[in-house]
Amino acid sequence: MQYPEPIAKLIDSYMRLPGIGEKTAVRLAFFTIDMDKEDVSEFSKALVSAKSDLHYCSLCGNITESDPCVICADKTRDQQQVIVVEQVKDVMAFEKLRDYHGLYHVLHGVLSPSEGIGPEDINVKGLIRRLQANPEIKEVILATNATPEGEATAMYISRLIKPAGIKTTRLAHGLAVGSDIEYADEMTLFKAVEGRQEI
Amino acid sequence: MQYPEPIAKLIDSYMRLPGIGEKTAVRLAFFTIDMDKEDVSEFSKALVSAKSDLHYCSLCGNITESDPCVICADKTRDQQQVIVVEQVKDVMAFEKLRDYHGLYHVLHGVLSPSEGIGPEDINVKGLIRRLQANPEIKEVILATNATPEGEATAMYISRLIKPAGIKTTRLAHGLAVGSDIEYADEMTLFKAVEGRQEI
Repeated sequence: MQYPEPIAKLIDSYMRLPGIGEKTAVRLAFFTIDMDKEDVSEFSKALVSAKSDLHYCSLCGNITESDPCVICADKTRDQQQVIVVEQVKDVMAFEKLRDYHGLYHVLHGVLSPSEGIGPEDINVKGLIRRLQANPEIKEVILATNATPEGEATAMYISRLIKPAGIKTTRLAHGLAVGSDIEYADEMTLFKAVEGRQEI
Repeated sequence: MQYPEPIAKLIDSYMRLPGIGEKTAVRLAFFTIDMDKEDVSEFSKALVSAKSDLHYCSLCGNITESDPCVICADKTRDQQQVIVVEQVKDVMAFEKLRDYHGLYHVLHGVLSPSEGIGPEDINVKGLIRRLQANPEIKEVILATNATPEGEATAMYISRLIKPAGIKTTRLAHGLAVGSDIEYADEMTLFKAVEGRQEI
């Protein structure tokens, strides 16, 4: 005997999600059957709605229901600063700070020659177009990840932008707040010493 | 800025699943947005269908689209043996053996006084009713888990059934095939010695 078709299909769907293997999918499917009918119907609608009601902002690449997104449309925000990030989730991380009131630009990826991802595969052109159209932008903060790909992408973009006289900055490297020096890796420690500041 | 509503709702729904915290839910939600539209719509339908098209077999408690389920309805199966299991997933485990051709009975739980689960909360009454209505059932194999609750439940059911003259058996305890004696826990080793067989 196989699983009845409705549950087999649901197991299949769960297995398409990242990090979910067969055992977990089976567990989730049986859990679903025992869930409230309303919760399941809400889940089902949320899936379709997330797929069909959301798109990327044509200006900054952030995920949004309206175009331009609420951040780009908010004229009270500082129009002089743009934080460039790899992905939408990074925008949320900065927004949680409640301390930054400028704009964002989402690249949707990083340069990665080994995976064949070049400048035309990420949202760099959109950034250049935006900088040309908005001379009020004074500073571009490159907030790609502290990975080799993130560093290379930041370097690439800064070389493109600098000639236009726009200030280009990179997030500081160093010890994470609350971390032990004992456990810091060499590169981080090196960067922390290099970037030391007078107190 | 919060997440746009469609994605916030989807994150909420993912978080209701067992073992999925906020970070994973966010990751799954963003993954969903990048999935094929068809896959998402299939997933959405599978959720509703699993909830509305499936119910429990009125005879054995297995999950099914039709009532009675395909196993109960299959008269070519051995009508003399019934394996009693805790949950639907256990039926699937036995069916994978392809070596057992009898019937099943799903308890949907185990006795657990500490959680307030008594005999009336699990599908014991259904089993007794079935045994009374089907005198051709000769053996009840108690295949609850090898946990204290599973053992107690097996013991409870065997005491209920035995007076009626039905053979009641319990799965063997011992070393898992392929396992090392070095790593076996004491109880398992004790049971393995106790249940030793001549070769």
